[in-house]
Amino acid sequence: MNFLEKRILQEGIVLSDTVLKVDAFLNHQIDPLLMKEIGAEFAERFKEDGVTKILTIESSGIAPAVFAGLALGVPVLFARKKKSLTLHEGLLTSKVFSFTKQEESEISISSKFLRRNERVLIIDDFLAHGEAASALCELAENAGAAVAGIGIVIEKSFQQGREKLEQEGYKIESIARIQSMNENGIQFVCGEKEAALHE
Amino acid sequence: MNFLEKRILQEGIVLSDTVLKVDAFLNHQIDPLLMKEIGAEFAERFKEDGVTKILTIESSGIAPAVFAGLALGVPVLFARKKKSLTLHEGLLTSKVFSFTKQEESEISISSKFLRRNERVLIIDDFLAHGEAASALCELAENAGAAVAGIGIVIEKSFQQGREKLEQEGYKIESIARIQSMNENGIQFVCGEKEAALHE
Repeated sequence: MNFLEKRILQEGIVLSDTVLKVDAFLNHQIDPLLMKEIGAEFAERFKEDGVTKILTIESSGIAPAVFAGLALGVPVLFARKKKSLTLHEGLLTSKVFSFTKQEESEISISSKFLRRNERVLIIDDFLAHGEAASALCELAENAGAAVAGIGIVIEKSFQQGREKLEQEGYKIESIARIQSMNENGIQFVCGEKEAALHE
Repeated sequence: MNFLEKRILQEGIVLSDTVLKVDAFLNHQIDPLLMKEIGAEFAERFKEDGVTKILTIESSGIAPAVFAGLALGVPVLFARKKKSLTLHEGLLTSKVFSFTKQEESEISISSKFLRRNERVLIIDDFLAHGEAASALCELAENAGAAVAGIGIVIEKSFQQGREKLEQEGYKIESIARIQSMNENGIQFVCGEKEAALHE
């Protein structure tokens, strides 16, 4: 079990077979030291991929992305879920369907910050159905950039996101991969079944 | 002129006498190295204030806040502008009026992450009328915590935010303080008038 899987067992809360709450260290409260470790881990896994920029999505992607950016020595761009009042030149948009919220939304970036021939590392907090990651890949490619890879903090491996993105040819690296979860605990991919979570 | 003021002159875009666009390094694209410097500067300015937690607001506050949190060795909590589906226990809310958007919105945190007797450092990207900072102070105080101070990346010193917050007794530290700005350039507080900005 790696540092993040241990932390998920210590502080994550399984709300259902598909919903894991990690607002103690990632989605609401953020542990900066953990984010630094996550950033270093992404940098290690993508160090040979010629990354020139990181693309993430507000809000929970930002903390892991900035530490990965620091470790790789590249800038970070975050896609917005709502259009900014002062951000409209060369706007690129992509649609994302949220299975949790059962609604479609639009995310956007300003094309002036993604140039042709850049190699973009996509970073996000969760991978489930792959909707957000796909939309980020689409934004990068519509800007004429190449996707160097996709770095995920927590992957729900029992959902279809990884399979779908791998079929599209993307390299995916997830720091924690959840095989299954329920009220009795969390099983990680290639890991052993862990004891029940405590609050 | 400090490191941030230099960067604002290099890459900031003055859209009007009151609107400065810094989406090249803070509000859309983020420079992680600059954020690390900003975090270190906040840590230096608040090192004697007994900070136990940082409170910021999504999305542009997160990057400076996590680096300040790393430097001070404390967790970061970010207030949400939209209610999360999985975040409702002990929700504390506060209203923010946006002068830019001319609308009132609600921000919220989960009270379980802010305990009584904590000393909270509020961090935000901009200070103008002080609406967001006031709302964050209110959230912290409603949780029973004390506000140790307010750290701002860029202050529009020609607007009323600082004065209002100082009258309420808060310690405010802003890394860049803009005295005035227009198409000819930006004048910083205690600084000299600088040459025109370039894109």
